[in-house]
Amino acid sequence: MSNKIRVTVWNEYRHEQESDIVRGVYPNGIHAAIKEGLDSEYDVQVATLDEHDNGLSESKLNETDVLIWWGHKAHGDVSDDTVERVYNRVLHGMGLIVLHSGHFSKIFKKLMGTSCDLKWREANEKERIWVVAPGHPIVAGIGEYIELPEEEMYGEHFDIPQPDELVMVSWFEGGEVFRSGCCYTRGLGKIFYFRPGHETYPTYYNNDIRRVISNAVAWSAPNHREYPKYGNAVPLETIKGRAE
Amino acid sequence: MSNKIRVTVWNEYRHEQESDIVRGVYPNGIHAAIKEGLDSEYDVQVATLDEHDNGLSESKLNETDVLIWWGHKAHGDVSDDTVERVYNRVLHGMGLIVLHSGHFSKIFKKLMGTSCDLKWREANEKERIWVVAPGHPIVAGIGEYIELPEEEMYGEHFDIPQPDELVMVSWFEGGEVFRSGCCYTRGLGKIFYFRPGHETYPTYYNNDIRRVISNAVAWSAPNHREYPKYGNAVPLETIKGRAE
Amino acid sequence: MSNKIRVTVWNEYRHEQESDIVRGVYPNGIHAAIKEGLDSEYDVQVATLDEHDNGLSESKLNETDVLIWWGHKAHGDVSDDTVERVYNRVLHGMGLIVLHSGHFSKIFKKLMGTSCDLKWREANEKERIWVVAPGHPIVAGIGEYIELPEEEMYGEHFDIPQPDELVMVSWFEGGEVFRSGCCYTRGLGKIFYFRPGHETYPTYYNNDIRRVISNAVAWSAPNHREYPKYGNAVPLETIKGRAE
Amino acid sequence: MSNKIRVTVWNEYRHEQESDIVRGVYPNGIHAAIKEGLDSEYDVQVATLDEHDNGLSESKLNETDVLIWWGHKAHGDVSDDTVERVYNRVLHGMGLIVLHSGHFSKIFKKLMGTSCDLKWREANEKERIWVVAPGHPIVAGIGEYIELPEEEMYGEHFDIPQPDELVMVSWFEGGEVFRSGCCYTRGLGKIFYFRPGHETYPTYYNNDIRRVISNAVAWSAPNHREYPKYGNAVPLETIKGRAE
Repeated sequence: MSNKIRVTVWNEYRHEQESDIVRGVYPNGIHAAIKEGLDSEYDVQVATLDEHDNGLSESKLNETDVLIWWGHKAHGDVSDDTVERVYNRVLHGMGLIVLHSGHFSKIFKKLMGTSCDLKWREANEKERIWVVAPGHPIVAGIGEYIELPEEEMYGEHFDIPQPDELVMVSWFEGGEVFRSGCCYTRGLGKIFYFRPGHETYPTYYNNDIRRVISNAVAWSAPNHREYPKYGNAVPLETIKGRAE
Repeated sequence: MSNKIRVTVWNEYRHEQESDIVRGVYPNGIHAAIKEGLDSEYDVQVATLDEHDNGLSESKLNETDVLIWWGHKAHGDVSDDTVERVYNRVLHGMGLIVLHSGHFSKIFKKLMGTSCDLKWREANEKERIWVVAPGHPIVAGIGEYIELPEEEMYGEHFDIPQPDELVMVSWFEGGEVFRSGCCYTRGLGKIFYFRPGHETYPTYYNNDIRRVISNAVAWSAPNHREYPKYGNAVPLETIKGRAE
Repeated sequence: MSNKIRVTVWNEYRHEQESDIVRGVYPNGIHAAIKEGLDSEYDVQVATLDEHDNGLSESKLNETDVLIWWGHKAHGDVSDDTVERVYNRVLHGMGLIVLHSGHFSKIFKKLMGTSCDLKWREANEKERIWVVAPGHPIVAGIGEYIELPEEEMYGEHFDIPQPDELVMVSWFEGGEVFRSGCCYTRGLGKIFYFRPGHETYPTYYNNDIRRVISNAVAWSAPNHREYPKYGNAVPLETIKGRAE
Repeated sequence: MSNKIRVTVWNEYRHEQESDIVRGVYPNGIHAAIKEGLDSEYDVQVATLDEHDNGLSESKLNETDVLIWWGHKAHGDVSDDTVERVYNRVLHGMGLIVLHSGHFSKIFKKLMGTSCDLKWREANEKERIWVVAPGHPIVAGIGEYIELPEEEMYGEHFDIPQPDELVMVSWFEGGEVFRSGCCYTRGLGKIFYFRPGHETYPTYYNNDIRRVISNAVAWSAPNHREYPKYGNAVPLETIKGRAE
């Protein structure tokens, strides 16, 4: 039996089936490209929206240490039950890596507590993702920045809670900036939001992008600790009590 | 017309009507005691659960700069529409001060993105609330700690996101600690969670507790700025574009 | 007697005396331009490096609620005694606003605990300072961004501790980003670092820049609370003690 | 050649030589007890104050991935050169774990930028260290709290910058609380402050305490990335330049 971290790459998997352009970039789906970048280090499965239970049954989630999420045009088709199952697994320690347009997924909005809205533009423009926390394990092996010749723009204000750790900030050719690598903890679970990855660009074949996602898997893997005890608690020390 | 900050004190207002003990402590309701502590500085209204729209109509919320929330046994009776109205107002800048058992309110859980669960015990025990961020405006005028001779215990782990600013930590006679004063921002709105205030104790008559709540009103009052522009954005700079 | 916040604008004041270009932009010194932007709201004094005690005597600092710091080429001429006096006042609650090249001042480096190094370039390039924390009081009255047609570039990595609150991020024409508005607390004192303001550009006449500095004064003004008690402390509760 | 993380345990090593009581608890020095807890997982050396270069030569530091620091009565005997060497290594990525009375060491104060003062009391009292960030790798394998039957008390206010991550909070029998497990980043280096460990108690033989220190070594180990490039930078994009 393997001791490798168990990763599930979840993809909405609609664009690739409906668009020749996207299928041209990702013939086997975005999930396959992401999986390929992780296979040498982790035990990786895939799951897609149109499978039973949106591909994320209770048992599949229980066997997942880190879930990677790519969704865009069908956020509304993810069932509330699926969102609740993922949410509970995150609070119990499963890592969650939310990519690009996943910022608007039900699960990310539920975990953030904000609208997660932002500015966007599809104009084939240059993005340069600067490392602002060079000591962070998520950017190990990455240079001062990652340059992507063409990407969709996401711009501030990005309506998220202040990240626990801000790791990367993007510069866009059209004049905007964006907090592109954001770390959070919710319950026992660690969450990493990573901006790049529009479906029409070959971003998930980029070695630096793959390195960041791989590092984020290691960073967000759970400790497998017991869930905290909540509710009524007996005192650990003697209480003098109310004078009657 | 007044330039004072407009505060609405919302109270579930059930314990006071159902329990002689609680009514003995707060004969006009917890909201009345909280309002009394704020009247000299702010323009204060009250609202309660059993009013129309749970006391929090669109127009009432639009006239509220800071909402104070006390709820306990009837979180489920707050309608989802009310929660949505309050949530949207917070994202648009309304301050929100969540007191004590409000940690389990729908609105607080929605804004936090976690279970907000904790340990608790009703044992008439001593609480000492230590200031850990003495430069913070919320503890202006407060000494090194606030001592409450009898309170309900809340203990860690408290399942909240790491606070943007942690201002106070409680010591309990029975052996626990608790992060008792926690600051957050969600959208344009500032949120302060403040632990003390079980319904059977005269906590909201305590001058230091009143001072903290009053300071928190000033801290969380909105800037009344325009809501950010989200969505598709024209470039601010020339984009060279894709070589065809 | 005035109740206004007492501000001291400190300027190295060397460039203006040595360079025709800088004197052309700031004929009475950078400090005079900054003071002018604050005079209507605060009680403002100035101080400069070549005065006795570097212009910052014990008594002057004791009468200062918020100190604004502009320095560049003569950081080494600020005496260690002056640095120590300012440091102690900050820990006791004085606000400190560090502007632009003040990132390399002795006092900022001492308070940050890091090198405070960065990338820079003087190329008359465009800077666009984006608001990433629109609910923060420091950006009240500011739009989505401040655009400066020409400024010196500062680029990441900026070697500072992660800010307690990151309020603004700059985009530069030459391809870099920078964390431009950074909030910290040290002891009882609040510190705001604000990037723009190279000596050859009329940045401190810009109304938005002036608004940010003015807001930062209000944000960083002290609570005037008693300094915490440190050292040996008698117990507040009975200790059972060691079984002999 | 080993791929293990290289740890150096530094100890002032004076109490053990001067006091029968302390030598009774730590016959080979506190450093030996700490080393013993790490030997099975890491490549561990020791160093002490009275060695040449305070035991921390340039070459020794260059071969150290994580430095553990215990000092108390002789902070002033650590040379400024040693402090500077350690400081530079931290900024370049070496992890630093500061234990107990090391809060007042020159190196910790330099990295924090504050006085690092606190309340204290030697009264053989009970300490209960509560986990407040149960998902953090530093508390992997630790239960809800660590109970120490007798320790020195450290109480708030602890004059440190707000931790990037607050992992543990202590409850003391005498009535105080303390932020006992605090994470920071400075430059490329990660820093963990961990409160317990007065020289007269057998704290460093406690398995949970050893587990926390061991976890902290793994957490703070460097990425061994290239140091960022600072200083003058050529533009990455064309700058239109000033209209003459």
